[in-house]
Amino acid sequence: MPLADILLGSPLASSDEKSQRVGPARGVPIFGLDALSSAAYGPEAALTILLPLGVAGLTYILPLTTGIVVLLAIVYFSYRQTIAAYPQGAGSYTVAKENLGEGAGLLAAAALLIDYLLNVAVAISAGVGALVSGVPKLQPYTLTLCLVILVLITIANLRGIREPGALFMAPTYLFVACLFVVILWGLWRSLLSGGHPQPLVPPPPFQTAQAAASTWIVLKAFASGCTAMTGVEAVSNGVQAFREPVVKSARLTLTVIISILILLLLGIAELARTYHIGATDPGQPGYQSVLSQLTEAVAGRGVFYGITIAAILSVLCLSANTSFADFPRVCRAVAMDSYLPRSLTNRGRRLVYSEGIWILAILSAGVLILFGGVTDRLIPLFAVGAFLAFTMSQAGMVAHWKKAGGRGARGSMLINGIGAIATGATLAIILAAKFTSGAWVVVLLVPAILAAMAATRHHYARVDRETAPRGRLLAGPVQPPIAVVPMEQWNSTTQKALRFAFGISNDIEIVHVDYEGCEPLQRNWAHEVEHAAQNSGVPMPRIVRLSSPYRFVIQPIIDHILALEKKHAEREIAVVIPMLVEPRWYQYFLHSERNELLSGLLLLKGDRRISIVNVPWYIK
Amino acid sequence: MPLADILLGSPLASSDEKSQRVGPARGVPIFGLDALSSAAYGPEAALTILLPLGVAGLTYILPLTTGIVVLLAIVYFSYRQTIAAYPQGAGSYTVAKENLGEGAGLLAAAALLIDYLLNVAVAISAGVGALVSGVPKLQPYTLTLCLVILVLITIANLRGIREPGALFMAPTYLFVACLFVVILWGLWRSLLSGGHPQPLVPPPPFQTAQAAASTWIVLKAFASGCTAMTGVEAVSNGVQAFREPVVKSARLTLTVIISILILLLLGIAELARTYHIGATDPGQPGYQSVLSQLTEAVAGRGVFYGITIAAILSVLCLSANTSFADFPRVCRAVAMDSYLPRSLTNRGRRLVYSEGIWILAILSAGVLILFGGVTDRLIPLFAVGAFLAFTMSQAGMVAHWKKAGGRGARGSMLINGIGAIATGATLAIILAAKFTSGAWVVVLLVPAILAAMAATRHHYARVDRETAPRGRLLAGPVQPPIAVVPMEQWNSTTQKALRFAFGISNDIEIVHVDYEGCEPLQRNWAHEVEHAAQNSGVPMPRIVRLSSPYRFVIQPIIDHILALEKKHAEREIAVVIPMLVEPRWYQYFLHSERNELLSGLLLLKGDRRISIVNVPWYIK
Repeated sequence: MPLADILLGSPLASSDEKSQRVGPARGVPIFGLDALSSAAYGPEAALTILLPLGVAGLTYILPLTTGIVVLLAIVYFSYRQTIAAYPQGAGSYTVAKENLGEGAGLLAAAALLIDYLLNVAVAISAGVGALVSGVPKLQPYTLTLCLVILVLITIANLRGIREPGALFMAPTYLFVACLFVVILWGLWRSLLSGGHPQPLVPPPPFQTAQAAASTWIVLKAFASGCTAMTGVEAVSNGVQAFREPVVKSARLTLTVIISILILLLLGIAELARTYHIGATDPGQPGYQSVLSQLTEAVAGRGVFYGITIAAILSVLCLSANTSFADFPRVCRAVAMDSYLPRSLTNRGRRLVYSEGIWILAILSAGVLILFGGVTDRLIPLFAVGAFLAFTMSQAGMVAHWKKAGGRGARGSMLINGIGAIATGATLAIILAAKFTSGAWVVVLLVPAILAAMAATRHHYARVDRETAPRGRLLAGPVQPPIAVVPMEQWNSTTQKALRFAFGISNDIEIVHVDYEGCEPLQRNWAHEVEHAAQNSGVPMPRIVRLSSPYRFVIQPIIDHILALEKKHAEREIAVVIPMLVEPRWYQYFLHSERNELLSGLLLLKGDRRISIVNVPWYIK
Repeated sequence: MPLADILLGSPLASSDEKSQRVGPARGVPIFGLDALSSAAYGPEAALTILLPLGVAGLTYILPLTTGIVVLLAIVYFSYRQTIAAYPQGAGSYTVAKENLGEGAGLLAAAALLIDYLLNVAVAISAGVGALVSGVPKLQPYTLTLCLVILVLITIANLRGIREPGALFMAPTYLFVACLFVVILWGLWRSLLSGGHPQPLVPPPPFQTAQAAASTWIVLKAFASGCTAMTGVEAVSNGVQAFREPVVKSARLTLTVIISILILLLLGIAELARTYHIGATDPGQPGYQSVLSQLTEAVAGRGVFYGITIAAILSVLCLSANTSFADFPRVCRAVAMDSYLPRSLTNRGRRLVYSEGIWILAILSAGVLILFGGVTDRLIPLFAVGAFLAFTMSQAGMVAHWKKAGGRGARGSMLINGIGAIATGATLAIILAAKFTSGAWVVVLLVPAILAAMAATRHHYARVDRETAPRGRLLAGPVQPPIAVVPMEQWNSTTQKALRFAFGISNDIEIVHVDYEGCEPLQRNWAHEVEHAAQNSGVPMPRIVRLSSPYRFVIQPIIDHILALEKKHAEREIAVVIPMLVEPRWYQYFLHSERNELLSGLLLLKGDRRISIVNVPWYIK
């Protein structure tokens, strides 16, 4: 069994496509991991901003979370509509493009691609970072661990869409179950104690307030908390991956994901408030994540604590997978319109868009290596792409309903309009709050990507124009080409090339480069050629000797052929080059690769009427 | 002016060869640097071994040096004879091969190649090491400095044989002049003081004796001192680089080199004795080289001291150049007999054997990088190769005179016989004394190189046998090949390929791979082909559609062509592949390189009757 089959699974026929589709049970881990894992860092991000307010900051967490949940609900309804309107699968790119124009679509696509790329790097390094802080011995292997996980996720995805679904189901549902247990248990204890529960393990005390609450701090906390919403658009991009009826499966999956996320966000906020749990300074010793404090406060430091933390870590790591499910689909949609290399639209051996998976893997490996596996500083860049895409998509849906009209269009337009305004406003807040801490990178990167996409499209258009079929294929009888055979020595390889030349033309030229130190041609070769010409009835080949005072071998031949082409303005020229093919790569060093070089250079420097014929001779 | 011309000089015609030859004035720096620079480390190496004897060790240095000088004289006379006997240039390889057989020749060649390679690494790192110990700030750049010097020496050598000669003349003669001044001045002061001169700067005191003198220590000191003889064989390899009359020029050069070396060695030994200068422990702080101590003792620490030390350092560095002059010549001689890649016999643009220069540069860069630019540990390996080559060459000359006979043959045989015995005995001493400290590496390396050389020769013999011209070129009229045109789309590139196919054959097959997601062929293409067939009088091409359930594109075509070849046992098959040639390398990523892959794979996996025709289409 070839290695590729073992690693990647045996090839799937295009007709196997239906069997590769998934239902909601697998759909949640595949398309929902990114969104669900956000519960682990969204609330924490908001609480970190509230840190300077001291314990007073806790009063804002429930209202803030409610705001985020409302926004989430708006986005949810809007994506439900998108799924119904575009059952062939339509992310922000398609929706924005079809309703607002190509520029808007590309803007959304560029934003999403950046978002997905960052998500892979940040998710893996967050998981590994948490693992390493638990097992400090692993510290020196941070980058290695990140890359190993990246490789595993890449392979799982190259094996097709179903496999990561199956692999990631257990940790995903364990994560959800554990958090639900913590939340319900915590609420129950809070209820019993009349709203003032005693934490089993007391959380670290709050610092004294260093600042008074201001609108700006609350807005910044909101912007940070919105990272909890990243990953929500994944389902709408991947509708085609769902089992029939696709719209129903996709919608159900989205509903499950969003419902769980809302419950988790609200539950965490309520527990933080009642158990007096705030963020701790991430740069300082004694840092402990909010979820870890919560679980300790509710359940103590036992086996359950360990299981919960392990589930959180693995889901953080695996949430990189959502990017792998979606990035190639976005690439494909853009490539279909020639804004990205067209090969991104090819499905690989396991019916996934393998090239997009490879590109994402290579780019994120680059980011991980660049940052040594510690990507904290990338987190601020993160939400910009997601909210830019949200806004474009919502605005696109408004335009869609306006065009479509009909019953219910007005209501749908209202929902999407509110969504567009809310996500747009949030984007503005995020950009303002995080511009100096990194969001400017995205602001620079997006136009660069757009320019590259435009250049790509332009290139394809030009190539298509230049290679369009033109004129009649043949207007009358054709003339065979002039066959030019470069001959260094008289041996079986050149014999064979010459035989081929006799087969295709009756106008043959043998070119030999004479230089000091070259091996002399066998004495009887010209006689042999003459004999062959008489026997076959083909005119005797012309024999051209090129002198080469500087001992160059290839250049004189190329010059001669270009001159020959000029001289015969109406003729095709076939350069028949003998090739010695050796079975082992290291034998490459033992033979002058002149003929390979000649072929390559003729292709590069040649002209339209020069074709290159490689006549191979195989060494056993 | 192209970069290659600026860096390497404009190409030289083969007829310019004579003007590139050198006389003794340039010959000494080119072929003598290695030998002359030995004066800087040979005596020191012997004195280091005598260190445990304390000041008593000094009594042995003059007799030991005398022994080395006698050996040197024997080798000198023997190489003089070699030059006369082989005016076409003959190093140890040729002499041993022609007189003792190919095995002996290859043994000598392998030994020399190792010696030359080590010489480059050791010489450059010795020079840089001395510079760095003078300017400790440069310490972190040791390896960089080594590589920069290596690059400069490589470029100088690629520019031809004359240029390094001109470049290195000044430092070489400055080195010789300075040392002569030190020696004469020192002797003069010693004479004035009745044999007990007072050093201007007193040398470091001797340690108290830790061992009594023994035959083994003296022999080891002799073996170490013999490193002073490395590099002596260089002239005899390079006879052809000398101006007419070559034998006279070469002999004169050799005489100058050996005379200077003998005077330097004797002078240094005598001064060490009278000024009480011994080696200092190279691993310890306070280390100072013997030449530095000598110059200080004789001339004090003034400007002259600075100049002398600078000249020694630069000559140490530049002595790597001798390897660059000789290594390619040895490679060429061996490659002429097919024991090394034949391309080593080609002369480059500046009439030097460039490929050998490149290989030496790459290998020594590898050694320098491997050892981080500090190659002290390689010094013991050094003399083994040189003395092995000496011995083979001397023994070869004995056999030569025996065969040649005639007047004076008996006397010459005696000289070479003594030389062979002396160098052979020295080799045995060196091997015994230095086996554990590194000489074993050479003992392992030599057979490995011999095996590779034998394998190379074997490979060439097989290829020559398999590619020998066979049978008649053509026995009768020839049949044109079956032309197969793979067609992905109907556009100008495939049109052009098809037009070419019509030109060479009347048996054309168009192959199209059908897979899910492939772009459909234009509707009217088949009609267009039919029209062309009618117009030109060629039979209508067969159209073959291959289905590809797994979306592979290349494999079905290759399988089909191999099957077609099987079916038509007597026919040649020409696969006519359209090629889109783009002007910029990055455009490579924008197009599927399927046709390039198909060409390559067909060459690799194909069979004898399948030829590949690349029909290029150029994008402007």
